[in-house]
Amino acid sequence: MVMEISRSTPETAGNVIRCKAAICRNPGEPLTIEEIEVDPPKAWEVRIKIICTSLCHTDVTFWKLNAGPGAVFPRIFGHEAVGVVESVGEHVEEFVEGDMVVPVFLPNCGECRDCESEKSNACSVFGQKRSPDMPRDETSRFKDMNGEVLHHFLWVSSFTEYTVVDVTHAVKINPDFPVDKACLLSCGVSTGVGAAWKVAAVEEGSTVAIFGLGAVGLAVAEGARLRGALKIIGIDLNSEKFEIGKQFGVTDFVNPATCGEKQVNEVIKELTNGGADYCFECIGMASVMQEAIRSSREGWGKTVILGVERFGSQLTVSPHELLRGKTVAGSFFGGLKPKSDIPLLAQKYLDKELSLDEFITNELSFQEINKAFELLEEGKSLRCIIWMDR
Amino acid sequence: MVMEISRSTPETAGNVIRCKAAICRNPGEPLTIEEIEVDPPKAWEVRIKIICTSLCHTDVTFWKLNAGPGAVFPRIFGHEAVGVVESVGEHVEEFVEGDMVVPVFLPNCGECRDCESEKSNACSVFGQKRSPDMPRDETSRFKDMNGEVLHHFLWVSSFTEYTVVDVTHAVKINPDFPVDKACLLSCGVSTGVGAAWKVAAVEEGSTVAIFGLGAVGLAVAEGARLRGALKIIGIDLNSEKFEIGKQFGVTDFVNPATCGEKQVNEVIKELTNGGADYCFECIGMASVMQEAIRSSREGWGKTVILGVERFGSQLTVSPHELLRGKTVAGSFFGGLKPKSDIPLLAQKYLDKELSLDEFITNELSFQEINKAFELLEEGKSLRCIIWMDR
Repeated sequence: MVMEISRSTPETAGNVIRCKAAICRNPGEPLTIEEIEVDPPKAWEVRIKIICTSLCHTDVTFWKLNAGPGAVFPRIFGHEAVGVVESVGEHVEEFVEGDMVVPVFLPNCGECRDCESEKSNACSVFGQKRSPDMPRDETSRFKDMNGEVLHHFLWVSSFTEYTVVDVTHAVKINPDFPVDKACLLSCGVSTGVGAAWKVAAVEEGSTVAIFGLGAVGLAVAEGARLRGALKIIGIDLNSEKFEIGKQFGVTDFVNPATCGEKQVNEVIKELTNGGADYCFECIGMASVMQEAIRSSREGWGKTVILGVERFGSQLTVSPHELLRGKTVAGSFFGGLKPKSDIPLLAQKYLDKELSLDEFITNELSFQEINKAFELLEEGKSLRCIIWMDR
Repeated sequence: MVMEISRSTPETAGNVIRCKAAICRNPGEPLTIEEIEVDPPKAWEVRIKIICTSLCHTDVTFWKLNAGPGAVFPRIFGHEAVGVVESVGEHVEEFVEGDMVVPVFLPNCGECRDCESEKSNACSVFGQKRSPDMPRDETSRFKDMNGEVLHHFLWVSSFTEYTVVDVTHAVKINPDFPVDKACLLSCGVSTGVGAAWKVAAVEEGSTVAIFGLGAVGLAVAEGARLRGALKIIGIDLNSEKFEIGKQFGVTDFVNPATCGEKQVNEVIKELTNGGADYCFECIGMASVMQEAIRSSREGWGKTVILGVERFGSQLTVSPHELLRGKTVAGSFFGGLKPKSDIPLLAQKYLDKELSLDEFITNELSFQEINKAFELLEEGKSLRCIIWMDR
């Protein structure tokens, strides 16, 4: 689906925009669609008219969080999206009104030592210094009709018709690119594909074990398929995921619940003649990370951790497990640099190398956004596209 | 020092050799120099006349071990050495009598998937299947004058005038190469240099932190210096190690005991503007491994674990610590393939690139071997060359 994009400066520029947003007022409670006011972009910011957004597990995790530093309400969730730049703030040179952009939680200033290095995607200027619930100047661009401040989420907040995003968090994309597919590149799918492609650099003929076949895990499979992996083993407690996984290149399946007395790593070792060349943890549980490391091959087995541990558990591993040449690599956004790598993935889709269509399992109108949470929690949805104008 | 080597087949071939060996009869007790009988080599074995040997911390660790599967006595320790092939067993084509060889604890069959891969040094045929206290056929080649079986150690056992070693554990070396320097390449020094050179592939201009400045840690420094590292930080509880380290390229020093309220990782981060590019754990303590990981840079920081954990402790690390692009790699023998990489290191010494002389801090006669244990334990010795014929 291609949007017609107007290049004229809209009359809203410089003014507060009143629009609809899905607000989370209390942890775990259904979002409420309300009118809000969105401030104009400040310096180094763009205001974006969201076209469509999708729901990622990280939204759900923080939506449920009822204590600790990440539990901030009222808040506008959503961090996978695509939209059109409505107006830009002072000093913004990279974007103009009308640009199609993908907002991304990971900053990419393009000028720091990390952004300039081939080896890193951890922008060292904007990477860790700011709170994820506020823009660069630590003040919100959102308030409700009673004047209450609404918190941002992961520097994106896409569950609103208009949002304000820092220039370091926006990626320009070809306006001819299908918007719903662009939305997928905003977080989960890029994370998985990137982990196989850039972090592991999976080689032709290799064996791959993927722990957790949600959208991220399936995107790892897709990335491994693209790189020519011979055997792609999915590990999931939901056996239905094997059929789904086959679309993304999964060749073998292990359900830990039906392994009997065998440990998952023993089953993987049997399937791969000693251990997988590459293991990916896509769930975010320390115990699964440990099992992934055990499942990797001695000599050169590499385990890539994509999942973010939610419970603060420590990863415990015997140093002897690593001794004979195993590697463990942490990764964020699949090791991708948003500004340069998202356009590359988009091109791979246009070249019919990368599959994206299969990730879209559901589509809803903005009004139905709470249904997306149910679908994801029930394991029935990979990605649900939520259309703002429907 | 260059040995004159006779190429004639000795009359001892095929016969039991009676010679002197330093036997460990009980854990932690001084070795006793006794007469022993050394059987001729069986199939795929060579019998080696040891020229000189040196003491490594791993010898000391197992020498002290008084319980568990590794505590096997009476035993002939020693696994760093150089010698001359006295005779060869059936099927041996790689070696002939008179060849100068370095025995190595790590097997290298040359034919398995791992030996054939550029990525691995973990021989998958001989890597883990055998006990380290016996040869391939699980019987000893050593007995004392009462007929009691003496156990091998790490497939080498070099604290004897003659030993028998599997062909997969012997590396042929240029007969013109100085024997005492060859001895160093047998384990510790190769392990350290290899970790910097092959496992980390330290880059020009990078920052390096080395935890533990024993011979292995100093060899890491030497390897990092060879690769053009800009800053090489040594971390050791013995501040005298800084002066010693300077010979091997150490530019900065941190003594954890004098850091005050700061953690070592905080000091390293200050010295490196955010964390070292490469960290090396050369001690074998899980808590130090953890600190090494913390000291590594986000984005691309790589921690190489060289030390073998002696107490069975688990390495515990927060997955969040790894998330932003950190890597942890286990390694064995510095990722080197004995048969191809030891000759390369020897050539680097001859080309005056690699420093080896500075590792030799002491020399003793075989009769004085127990003194070597004292020197190493007192931290006064890097490598002590023990000459068999003195």
